[in-house]
Amino acid sequence: MTTHRAASPSLIDVARAAGVSTATAGRALGGYGQVRAGTRERVLAAAAELGYRTNGLARSMITGSTQTIGVVVTDVANPFFATALRGVTDVVQPAGFEVLLANTGSAVEAERRAITVMSEKRVDGVIVAAAQPSQGAHLKHAIDLGVPIVLLDRQVAGVADADSVTIDNEQAAADAVAHLLELGHRRIGVVTEAGDRLAGLRGAGNRRKGLFPSAVRLRGYLRAIGAAGLEIDEGLIGSARYDRDSAYDATIRLLARDDPPTAILCTDNVLASGAFRAAQDRGLRMPDQLSLVGFDDEPWTTLVRPELTIVEQPTYDLGTRAGRRLLDRITGARDGRTVHVQLQAKLLVRGSTGAPAAR
Amino acid sequence: MTTHRAASPSLIDVARAAGVSTATAGRALGGYGQVRAGTRERVLAAAAELGYRTNGLARSMITGSTQTIGVVVTDVANPFFATALRGVTDVVQPAGFEVLLANTGSAVEAERRAITVMSEKRVDGVIVAAAQPSQGAHLKHAIDLGVPIVLLDRQVAGVADADSVTIDNEQAAADAVAHLLELGHRRIGVVTEAGDRLAGLRGAGNRRKGLFPSAVRLRGYLRAIGAAGLEIDEGLIGSARYDRDSAYDATIRLLARDDPPTAILCTDNVLASGAFRAAQDRGLRMPDQLSLVGFDDEPWTTLVRPELTIVEQPTYDLGTRAGRRLLDRITGARDGRTVHVQLQAKLLVRGSTGAPAAR
Repeated sequence: MTTHRAASPSLIDVARAAGVSTATAGRALGGYGQVRAGTRERVLAAAAELGYRTNGLARSMITGSTQTIGVVVTDVANPFFATALRGVTDVVQPAGFEVLLANTGSAVEAERRAITVMSEKRVDGVIVAAAQPSQGAHLKHAIDLGVPIVLLDRQVAGVADADSVTIDNEQAAADAVAHLLELGHRRIGVVTEAGDRLAGLRGAGNRRKGLFPSAVRLRGYLRAIGAAGLEIDEGLIGSARYDRDSAYDATIRLLARDDPPTAILCTDNVLASGAFRAAQDRGLRMPDQLSLVGFDDEPWTTLVRPELTIVEQPTYDLGTRAGRRLLDRITGARDGRTVHVQLQAKLLVRGSTGAPAAR
Repeated sequence: MTTHRAASPSLIDVARAAGVSTATAGRALGGYGQVRAGTRERVLAAAAELGYRTNGLARSMITGSTQTIGVVVTDVANPFFATALRGVTDVVQPAGFEVLLANTGSAVEAERRAITVMSEKRVDGVIVAAAQPSQGAHLKHAIDLGVPIVLLDRQVAGVADADSVTIDNEQAAADAVAHLLELGHRRIGVVTEAGDRLAGLRGAGNRRKGLFPSAVRLRGYLRAIGAAGLEIDEGLIGSARYDRDSAYDATIRLLARDDPPTAILCTDNVLASGAFRAAQDRGLRMPDQLSLVGFDDEPWTTLVRPELTIVEQPTYDLGTRAGRRLLDRITGARDGRTVHVQLQAKLLVRGSTGAPAAR
């Protein structure tokens, strides 16, 4: 993969043209160490003549900082991560840091490789939205080697010394369910990716680490239902994969029950779009015959009729806060403690939620 | 900004611990040059003991390749660029390249800085969605210094030696207008960001360089209207900024004409969402009272009623093709010619377009 670019002269070429040693040429171009004025001028003239590019690698080896941070996400094409990433870049670029990006496709092995490569490239720190929050050994290893890490959107099991910036997903889901309870709903369904985690969640206490946001949200649903004195009805928990069609099917199944839910919470935006479509296809009037709550203020949620009630996540802020925290770590402006920032989401009530129709 | 990390030992530390010179330690750890077996073992043991990270910077200085490419976009939070970026990473990561990302916010100065920094960091090449396609001097400068550049989504004036991967936006818009003409529409409006470019576009011949996609699309509209033997009615060209509210206002103005358009083409997704909303608020039945065409197969376009007819861009492929082209350039597998790849978009006809109602 290594190629010689004729158009890209090396330090050696510059040194030869200026008639000095490579070390002298390096000092003259890098602006460090002792070089006589006349020599420096000769080197700079040779560099300009040859079209030599300042070598940031050499500078980084000397200063110990690459002015680069890594950002590792599962899928940059997901609007959630794209928006958070924008938040990160908006903070770190003005501070003089560049962003090295890696996509993992939610594969731990890809994440491990990305962290290793970034560490070798001597990034000054890494922001990670973990592929699998239950698996953090490689993150702990990187931290032990001195790489500051800020966890984004999900806390990771076994990584005690990483800061984290997450959204209070349990409270967000509980707020949405409380809204539905207040409207008079008693059979409240949920369409979730975390249906298979149900047993563990019901007995899990307050443990947040190691869980995907979808599982934390399901726990918020369970907590709110329980707090209202209602029994958890497992038949109201619709399991779906992270795609619209799967959520559509799960919703159709919930609606086909003898006692269908009068309201459904969807634990993210893609699932909500499938559930909305299922309600449309079944010809259900919202909110009379079905109330629906989703996550994220995506464009479609105010273009459909009725407009969708949603939990608005501070996604951009998630990125800016993570970026700022990492810069603090890198520049040493931390107080030594590991910090866990939890941002609050906000319920935006729109036309898709209302009182259940009288039966 | 430079800090000393106690936890990050340097090559010097390793050399000292192993009792060898820094050069020897570097050769032992980098796996290049001559080192005696016993010495290599001592160095590796010292490195393990100290928790020394392999230094990719040193390796890069020797090999001349950083195995890194730059990607410069105007806004990574825009689903279009987020999806294209995913395409790039899906191609280059498996080939062993990392992605250095920069956001420019459409500011040429930010783009210039990003290109300079990336060049100093010795990226092996850069993919650029230019902030201002009319301004390419800094890109030309980087190419002259030996940095391979592939232009993404927009060709740039004055940059002859860069490959480009774009979508045939002129044909895409012309196809959409041809569809509306076939349905019987004669007063076809357009909501566009490029309204102020109208005069230039009407006389511009076939020049594509230096134009934003929105302007190229407007030219496609003009071409299709002209090809049908219709006069260009400037009153049917609604200018909007790149946001939903502005497109909403532009659409309301078009619909308030004495002879309103029976169909409207929106030159991108955000503008289409504003136009759709305006049609909803004005109580217009689509497609009878208004046909509407947008760009991009975003989730909302199939959740609204009627579903929106759209031009589907091969956005992900745009990224993969750009990534592949840049890898070809970097690895020398190019034939010397500059290549301009133009991908074709596809019209997806849905419920929002139909024959105009008889008057």
